[in-house]
Amino acid sequence: MSDPTIKDVAKDACVSVGTVSKVLHNQYVKPENRRRVESSIKRLNYTVNTYARGLREKQTFTVAVVVPDLINPFFAELVHYTELILSSMGYRLLVCNSQCRQDREAVYFQMAVQNKIDGIIAITYSILNQRKIRKIPLVLIDRNLDPEGKEENLCCVTCDNYRGGELAAKHLISDGCQNVLYLRNGSTLLGTETLKRGKAFLSVCSKAGIRAKEVDFGQETTLKDENVNTIRDFLKKSFDENGRFQYDGIFTSSDIHAVIVKRELKREGISIPEQVEIIGFDGLRELNYGDYIVSSIAQPIREIAMEAADSLIKMINHEHVQRVKVLPVKFVEGGTTKFATRLNSQF
Amino acid sequence: MSDPTIKDVAKDACVSVGTVSKVLHNQYVKPENRRRVESSIKRLNYTVNTYARGLREKQTFTVAVVVPDLINPFFAELVHYTELILSSMGYRLLVCNSQCRQDREAVYFQMAVQNKIDGIIAITYSILNQRKIRKIPLVLIDRNLDPEGKEENLCCVTCDNYRGGELAAKHLISDGCQNVLYLRNGSTLLGTETLKRGKAFLSVCSKAGIRAKEVDFGQETTLKDENVNTIRDFLKKSFDENGRFQYDGIFTSSDIHAVIVKRELKREGISIPEQVEIIGFDGLRELNYGDYIVSSIAQPIREIAMEAADSLIKMINHEHVQRVKVLPVKFVEGGTTKFATRLNSQF
Repeated sequence: MSDPTIKDVAKDACVSVGTVSKVLHNQYVKPENRRRVESSIKRLNYTVNTYARGLREKQTFTVAVVVPDLINPFFAELVHYTELILSSMGYRLLVCNSQCRQDREAVYFQMAVQNKIDGIIAITYSILNQRKIRKIPLVLIDRNLDPEGKEENLCCVTCDNYRGGELAAKHLISDGCQNVLYLRNGSTLLGTETLKRGKAFLSVCSKAGIRAKEVDFGQETTLKDENVNTIRDFLKKSFDENGRFQYDGIFTSSDIHAVIVKRELKREGISIPEQVEIIGFDGLRELNYGDYIVSSIAQPIREIAMEAADSLIKMINHEHVQRVKVLPVKFVEGGTTKFATRLNSQF
Repeated sequence: MSDPTIKDVAKDACVSVGTVSKVLHNQYVKPENRRRVESSIKRLNYTVNTYARGLREKQTFTVAVVVPDLINPFFAELVHYTELILSSMGYRLLVCNSQCRQDREAVYFQMAVQNKIDGIIAITYSILNQRKIRKIPLVLIDRNLDPEGKEENLCCVTCDNYRGGELAAKHLISDGCQNVLYLRNGSTLLGTETLKRGKAFLSVCSKAGIRAKEVDFGQETTLKDENVNTIRDFLKKSFDENGRFQYDGIFTSSDIHAVIVKRELKREGISIPEQVEIIGFDGLRELNYGDYIVSSIAQPIREIAMEAADSLIKMINHEHVQRVKVLPVKFVEGGTTKFATRLNSQF
């Protein structure tokens, strides 16, 4: 009979592997679970040496999460839930505000390559060196760098971006919009799943014979004065010679941009949603708790964090993970579209 | 002549100690600064051994920031700026959402005691064991556990909470409020600086002969349904037999609570600020960028993060720090008070 593994202990004690891990790392678990785990360890003659052998060499029980910033509530919430889940599994979380900068991300990829951290969850803005990252358990959010599923230590967690773009287009078209705008921002690296938002949106509009234009506002994810000014200038130029705003529907690739568009159009005397409808993407709520701040395609942030954390721990423990996990989106009403009572299921 | 220190190198190269540290840790600095530092290292015959001797034994260049959560934008912003500053000084940041739970905080205090991390910045909800923490470089935000300034490795960074409470009271009184409410939440541990908000508020009201009542909504900092329900129930009970709301001014110890109060009162048909004025605390903006979400006493979040990071690194390097650092607050207008044009300087 081979030496018992941590899984054998978990099975024998009727607890999760995470609970056994926490007992081994002297972290808090319910007293009764601790008793059961300790008793199973004794009964199976499971030793820390056995345990250590089964783990990656030099495991640090530290992982990193790389996001552009914590100012955008979407990223802050993502890190929040990721930390809650990882800490419950005995891992500590390093946080990196990359500010979309490759040099800031590189520090963490380097740490992972050197086994100073066990893995990374990232919304990356780097062109990753495939040879290096092959070694690192790496969960990419919204980036599918391995469409053929060949990389052992790489997976992607994302939402159904294509469906989100479709939903936005169908809502605007159904409300009678004739001349719509897609205002995009964020990464344009190969494999960026969020590009599907615009692809789907424009495709649905085109099939419906609706005029649709795409405008690119760069990779910035958090607003600075210069970004807001760019949006303002663009909107100001979008009035025709008769002073009429050219668009009756706007889809933005992030809620933050939708909020700015809403504010700037209101300043120009345009009523939202009567004259122009706006749909964002993310599903942010007032103070992350109350009402949706704009009509939006909502991402399941908590579930994305859970899937990312779960996949990372599985890869660290050499378990199989799904290479691409796509989570559902839904349309939510936030006062910038006309028909509050319409159901998602309509489309 | 004694061996050169990192300070000597910094002085010789006309750069900050942080820049030298970054060069030593192979992080990005401007090419010209790198050249200057490298040249000074050579000229002074400064060696890494010298450097290592000056540092704490087993320095990990990892510090932890402990906050209740990242859902409240105040905490998310605080962690955001802390990470930016610490990473620029060659440190990595572990993030812990304590959820105000002592067992979750304890993991990090334990790590620091065991030299697995170099120091902690915390908004703590634990009764800290003085003997243990004496060993750990520890920056407490809003907690002054050492009023006599005797602890070597402990300091407090906070805003001028007393002044904030005064400002809120003076604004409400100046607007003619006669019957005001202080709605508090958060820590009540000994040394909690935020308690001064209510103390000052009630004192100014009392001196002005204004009726003022304090209500405690517990230590929760982030809203869950149950907290919102408690606030709603309290407000519903605050109507007299003629259906008149009893208070004409409300000061809350956090903006999140002010937003809930505003929403719930509006639902009861009360117009804000005409019938009831509301002043929060923190100075949160829409999406952390736009307008203030309620009238508030604004904290300088970025400066608090900078002071906290700076103090922590100084303590890690055995440099002197100010034991209590109090940063200024200001009243900001967010639509829930009557006179938008009034100046802070009036009070």
